[in-house]
Amino acid sequence: GKAREFLSKHNLDVGDIIELEKNGIQVKGIIMPTYSNNDDIIVLKLDNGYNIGISVSNIQNVKLIEKKRKEEKRREGAVSTTNSEVMIISTGGTIVSKIEYETGAVRPALTPDEIIEFMPEIKEIARIDAEILFSILSENMKPEYWIKIAEEAKKALDKGNKGVVIAHGTDTMAYTSAALSFSFRKMTGPIVLVGSQRSSDRPSSDSSMNLLTSILVAKNAPFGEVVVNMHGESSDTYTLVHRGVKVRKMHTSRRDAFQSINDLPLAKVHYIDKKIEILSDNYRSKESENTLDAKFDNRVFLLKYYPGLSPDMVEHLISSGIRGIIIEGTGLGHTSSDFYEVFKKASKDGVFIGMTSQCLFGRVNMNVYTTGRLLQEAGVVPLEDMLPETALVKLMWTLAHENDLDRIKEIMLTNLAGEINYIHHYEMFPR
Amino acid sequence: GKAREFLSKHNLDVGDIIELEKNGIQVKGIIMPTYSNNDDIIVLKLDNGYNIGISVSNIQNVKLIEKKRKEEKRREGAVSTTNSEVMIISTGGTIVSKIEYETGAVRPALTPDEIIEFMPEIKEIARIDAEILFSILSENMKPEYWIKIAEEAKKALDKGNKGVVIAHGTDTMAYTSAALSFSFRKMTGPIVLVGSQRSSDRPSSDSSMNLLTSILVAKNAPFGEVVVNMHGESSDTYTLVHRGVKVRKMHTSRRDAFQSINDLPLAKVHYIDKKIEILSDNYRSKESENTLDAKFDNRVFLLKYYPGLSPDMVEHLISSGIRGIIIEGTGLGHTSSDFYEVFKKASKDGVFIGMTSQCLFGRVNMNVYTTGRLLQEAGVVPLEDMLPETALVKLMWTLAHENDLDRIKEIMLTNLAGEINYIHHYEMFPR
Ligand SMILES: N[C@@H](CC(=O)O)C(=O)O
Ligand SMILES: N[C@@H](CC(=O)O)C(=O)O
Repeated sequence: GKAREFLSKHNLDVGDIIELEKNGIQVKGIIMPTYSNNDDIIVLKLDNGYNIGISVSNIQNVKLIEKKRKEEKRREGAVSTTNSEVMIISTGGTIVSKIEYETGAVRPALTPDEIIEFMPEIKEIARIDAEILFSILSENMKPEYWIKIAEEAKKALDKGNKGVVIAHGTDTMAYTSAALSFSFRKMTGPIVLVGSQRSSDRPSSDSSMNLLTSILVAKNAPFGEVVVNMHGESSDTYTLVHRGVKVRKMHTSRRDAFQSINDLPLAKVHYIDKKIEILSDNYRSKESENTLDAKFDNRVFLLKYYPGLSPDMVEHLISSGIRGIIIEGTGLGHTSSDFYEVFKKASKDGVFIGMTSQCLFGRVNMNVYTTGRLLQEAGVVPLEDMLPETALVKLMWTLAHENDLDRIKEIMLTNLAGEINYIHHYEMFPR
Repeated sequence: GKAREFLSKHNLDVGDIIELEKNGIQVKGIIMPTYSNNDDIIVLKLDNGYNIGISVSNIQNVKLIEKKRKEEKRREGAVSTTNSEVMIISTGGTIVSKIEYETGAVRPALTPDEIIEFMPEIKEIARIDAEILFSILSENMKPEYWIKIAEEAKKALDKGNKGVVIAHGTDTMAYTSAALSFSFRKMTGPIVLVGSQRSSDRPSSDSSMNLLTSILVAKNAPFGEVVVNMHGESSDTYTLVHRGVKVRKMHTSRRDAFQSINDLPLAKVHYIDKKIEILSDNYRSKESENTLDAKFDNRVFLLKYYPGLSPDMVEHLISSGIRGIIIEGTGLGHTSSDFYEVFKKASKDGVFIGMTSQCLFGRVNMNVYTTGRLLQEAGVVPLEDMLPETALVKLMWTLAHENDLDRIKEIMLTNLAGEINYIHHYEMFPR
């Protein structure tokens, strides 16, 4: 690529601070690694923390301001294993990815050291430690891995870190955050899941703002909760900290894709000021110890109801040996009354059937319509304002701990981690 | 109930215009029918069109202004079968429901005549005709009924009505609107689906505003499309007209539960002024004839992906004899790569597998991540920005018309009724 030629021609390396002039404008910044070798863009990190991409054609002037200080860097130790305040556990996803330049596809690949190379400012926020636990895209996440993540996070908190940051793909981040929320009973500090929608080697990447603010939250926020910290609006102004059981990825590609559903975000983190603004005092506080109980039984199914679904199909499904179903019903929590018999038989056979709504926003209420009453008679349990995904993860957790159907119902309706919110405000529904 | 006693004591009937005084405030209006016999509320329709509920205790003064004009009413014919401009087809749902006062549950029950008795203003908007086609809650809706609705709507348009209003439960309204959208190739006027979240006999009901504005849209809007017309915000100010294939019920109970997803609403209808404001010029125009082709094959399945879903379960599902699957994948359109073999085998066997996103907002893009590329290799077809529910209904329609997998793919990727939108605006994502 031309960018590479340009750098070698001027004897420049990644990490060097340079000043250049283009179209009459002067820009000063650190040269960042790029992985798209076939284009003519170099990426500079500016003083204000932003990355910009600059085409190397027509650059008029290049001046080396400071060579990358190799020795000093090593010594200061971006990644220091002793005495750390925040532990970064990397599981994969775009936030730790680079673009394969042959195919243009994104693969998780960056090491924690490389991340910190992208974001030298991290050192000013906290003493961090980092490890790569997995290198997967989060669509390949599994309940077994949730357990490993939980165990590593506990270790990190037990060792005295003030909080933990988990770099994770955005696709299934909300499932993982729910799984961790149900697994931890007590926590000495926040566990912050963070991802990004654009990979770190793109100028428009949201990873540095998301990661930086997450480290801030992990170190300074008063929460003893599992949270998700992601862009709050499209530009780089603030992130929102969402409760781990009340959050959802609501857009395939926007940076501000994550929203709290049926709850307020816990906090807003201002990027420029590096300030945490608490938005809700309804959070779990830190405890003096960490207690973990991470087990999941995935013999469950998430059934989204639609007109035309046949009771036979559902019977066939249940016959595959599942122990529980979360229905994503219509409206206040309905399916066709044709399912009465199938659900009744299944719940008699000990299969838990819980009801959530495909509306996502709002609460189920199965007392308003005759259809809802019938379903309740058949044994279907209305799950308040729980998100379908959260209810599913909670059911996996519950089934790994209980066999008795009555106890399972009881646990499903107990508010374990803020997954049930009894008070809905008007502003909780975005329009 | 006390309300009933109050009326008979003062020799008043539903339909009478009265003036009363309570707590020093004078109110004038038409007495509306109420079905909750066990309370002490009477409902008055005010001149401005609003219904208010008034407790009969402490009413200081009651004056009869005008007795209900039985003869004239008959003659004017709220429901007139000849020469109508708008046909109202009632399928059930809250909008045509009353509350069972024994149980408090809601049942579809009102006749078109009763609806018009609730809303005498209708006569001023259009000459209407009305029929009860079904009396079901929409959670009990089925593809067979979609066909019946489509046929009745066609008859009404063929007879010369300017438009059709379909009163429908909100739960599955978006599925029906999608089904009608794919069934009609050409239309001489709008088909407007309308529902309500609170039943007509409640003072807070949204039915009169929704029905009235729908009649307005059916009569005057320039669309040759199937649309959904529902409250645009919580108060009684305006409704929004959504394209039938781009709309979703996003809240279990709010009046403004319906949102356009990945598209702008087509119009805003101002309730007070009775004005239609066109918001998007990207609508289908009226045609000179109505062509209908309504067939559906429900051997399909809507599979919402989640971590922990096992390929075996999906294989088991497919073995039940389905011809197509719509996946609600994560993010840009993913599942775990563990599903590669199952999907590959299924699509080799002629099962269509289409990908949508559980994010709902945004477009799938299966070229960004290696996981997406693998799925495409296995035969999974990315379905642009289609809603999962719309894609499912479209697949039911397509499978009823085609057997060849390549033709099925081609149709699924052809924009038949605006279900694919190539241009997304920033404001299409509510926050
Ligand atoms: N597909 C990626 C997307 C991301 O990281 O944002 C993942 O979830 O791992
Ligand atoms: N459950 C009802 C709700 C409504 O009418 O709004 C139905 O869809 O028929």
